[in-house]
Amino acid sequence: MDYFDHSATTKPHKEVLDTFVKVNQEFYANPASLHELGVDANTLLSRARKQVAEMLTTDEQKVIFTSGGTESNHLAIHGLAKNLQGRGKHIITSNIEHPSVLETMKQLERLGFEVDILPVNKKGLISVDDVTSSLRKDTILVSIMHINNELGCIQPIQDLANTIHLNSRAMFHVDAVQSFGKYPVSFPALGADVLTLSGHKFNGLKGTGIVAWKGNVSFEPTIVGGGQEFGLRSGTVPVAQAVAFSKAMRLAFENQSNMHSKYVQWNTKLRSFMKEFKDVLILSSEEAAVHILTVSVRHLKGEVLVNALQEKGIIVSTSSACSSKQTKISHVIEAIGLSDDYSKGVIRISLGTSNTDQQIDNFMKQFSAVMKQVKGE
Amino acid sequence: MDYFDHSATTKPHKEVLDTFVKVNQEFYANPASLHELGVDANTLLSRARKQVAEMLTTDEQKVIFTSGGTESNHLAIHGLAKNLQGRGKHIITSNIEHPSVLETMKQLERLGFEVDILPVNKKGLISVDDVTSSLRKDTILVSIMHINNELGCIQPIQDLANTIHLNSRAMFHVDAVQSFGKYPVSFPALGADVLTLSGHKFNGLKGTGIVAWKGNVSFEPTIVGGGQEFGLRSGTVPVAQAVAFSKAMRLAFENQSNMHSKYVQWNTKLRSFMKEFKDVLILSSEEAAVHILTVSVRHLKGEVLVNALQEKGIIVSTSSACSSKQTKISHVIEAIGLSDDYSKGVIRISLGTSNTDQQIDNFMKQFSAVMKQVKGE
Repeated sequence: MDYFDHSATTKPHKEVLDTFVKVNQEFYANPASLHELGVDANTLLSRARKQVAEMLTTDEQKVIFTSGGTESNHLAIHGLAKNLQGRGKHIITSNIEHPSVLETMKQLERLGFEVDILPVNKKGLISVDDVTSSLRKDTILVSIMHINNELGCIQPIQDLANTIHLNSRAMFHVDAVQSFGKYPVSFPALGADVLTLSGHKFNGLKGTGIVAWKGNVSFEPTIVGGGQEFGLRSGTVPVAQAVAFSKAMRLAFENQSNMHSKYVQWNTKLRSFMKEFKDVLILSSEEAAVHILTVSVRHLKGEVLVNALQEKGIIVSTSSACSSKQTKISHVIEAIGLSDDYSKGVIRISLGTSNTDQQIDNFMKQFSAVMKQVKGE
Repeated sequence: MDYFDHSATTKPHKEVLDTFVKVNQEFYANPASLHELGVDANTLLSRARKQVAEMLTTDEQKVIFTSGGTESNHLAIHGLAKNLQGRGKHIITSNIEHPSVLETMKQLERLGFEVDILPVNKKGLISVDDVTSSLRKDTILVSIMHINNELGCIQPIQDLANTIHLNSRAMFHVDAVQSFGKYPVSFPALGADVLTLSGHKFNGLKGTGIVAWKGNVSFEPTIVGGGQEFGLRSGTVPVAQAVAFSKAMRLAFENQSNMHSKYVQWNTKLRSFMKEFKDVLILSSEEAAVHILTVSVRHLKGEVLVNALQEKGIIVSTSSACSSKQTKISHVIEAIGLSDDYSKGVIRISLGTSNTDQQIDNFMKQFSAVMKQVKGE
């Protein structure tokens, strides 16, 4: 099968799996143990943490390992809000954030926080002016994702960071789950105060993620107990997952510019190709991330296309994996106000390190065949 | 090194690592994806869930995968309490529970719940009568661990279940992290309503755990988002971890009686040996779990013993890994009211599948040498 669903998840690199196994075999002790096996495991954990911190340009005391992007987003948002509530209870976010962000916001609303959910334009972009005018004295947190998982739109993160830091005391959290390894992600590059990443989006392991921050930030922990991870996330730290995360990050980092130029080529090719179909609407704007191309076919259901392509050996998705099992139209597609003709026929082609030139050519061939089959085009 | 710190963590079995790698290579898709790779991953996940459910004797819709014992305890206790608060806000637990339980109780107290923390006797045992007389109309939850991680004492779980279910409407949560694979753990065997397990305590992977329940139980989720795990624990489910967890459980289950008779032999041998030292007090009672033997040496610091033994190739711990980095006396040791002479000299010898007859003999030899060295005994 030719896999074009890298935004849902990726296959772990062999080096990542090898690292994971090696650490489990040779450094299996509990990193909190006082004996030398524990100390050795802890040294390895610290090294992984330091590597992650360096790639993001922050201190090693400002990175904690979690069980993935969803937990990271929860801890970042919930933990920050609970910690800063003495200063205010106003939060700003957008209506195309990941469900882990939007559902955490609902939890906070039930706790008495006030959440402004800003709209996006047709391209899925949030307006910097909207954010500026929404900032208040009691705004404690702004959470905006870097690259949207369903459309690929890239938010103006640096401009947002500037206005937030200039006009308020709010912290700026950026969900960079879909961007790391494809675009520069670091504190200087984005201007964020808090970043969240997920390992399995860049050929790391599922069940691995981080929260990282710069400056004076703290979180009220959710998962409490033995006080691991600087007291911010309890539970025996899975050292092998942490080291595998760092390994995947380094590989993604090293391959970034190489892969990026391939994505540019493939994206350009696929866009020109898609434009030839009169019933196909390209939803990802020209300025969107090069590894995500979302299109819609008029008067068709996304599921029908996914299945037809699958029969020809091509794997794409309808929208995000998180919402793909729900039959309703995704909140992101709703947010960009797509006409009824197109709102159900959405498919996402998401590129990754496993793709090849040949696969792109084959995709086009098979997509044409499917369109002929279902639309007579 | 001869490793006697299996209650802190264990080395994953080769079969568990092999399973993990294989699933990552062959079933890497997101189990929430609609396409066939997603469906295949989801089928594998369901199978793992079913196997876990069968070993515990419950339905497969009543098992969810988490990132470990600490998260499991948090979700079980916090999630149940939040869900049942309409019925009452009174909770019962003991003073020798794991920090993940006791710290979650503190979170709940801050939310207005009333928590009765019952004492234990010199053997570390909770009194069934104490629990019975503490039960109230508004008691919604009792949380008592099966086997204590620092002492090995086995609580009278079935008797507790009987009195709880006879005299109240409360749910009974049992933290079975230290017992699975060593003693029978299932809903019929224990009578609990909710069970929590951690994979790395029985040669599974760190970062893996479950919450399982029987009957009509539900939880308010903490980590929210895409609604995975029946809406109770969001985040892309790491299928390979789930399958590895089930694999580790089956191996532990199959080897249980075999290993148990070895632990009985080794424990008996070590107890007779320890009794010969006039300055050694055996803290684990005769009825305690056979895989945990905790002793204290008079007028000595546990750290000194741990280091001296380590120099002779023997790995033991002072108390639990969670509290081993704190210099204060552990809450469990405090709870059994040890005299000052002995309260600082605690070491825990915890047995596991990696131990051999030869290692037990070597342990005794080296322990004698260390005692001669430090105490002149």
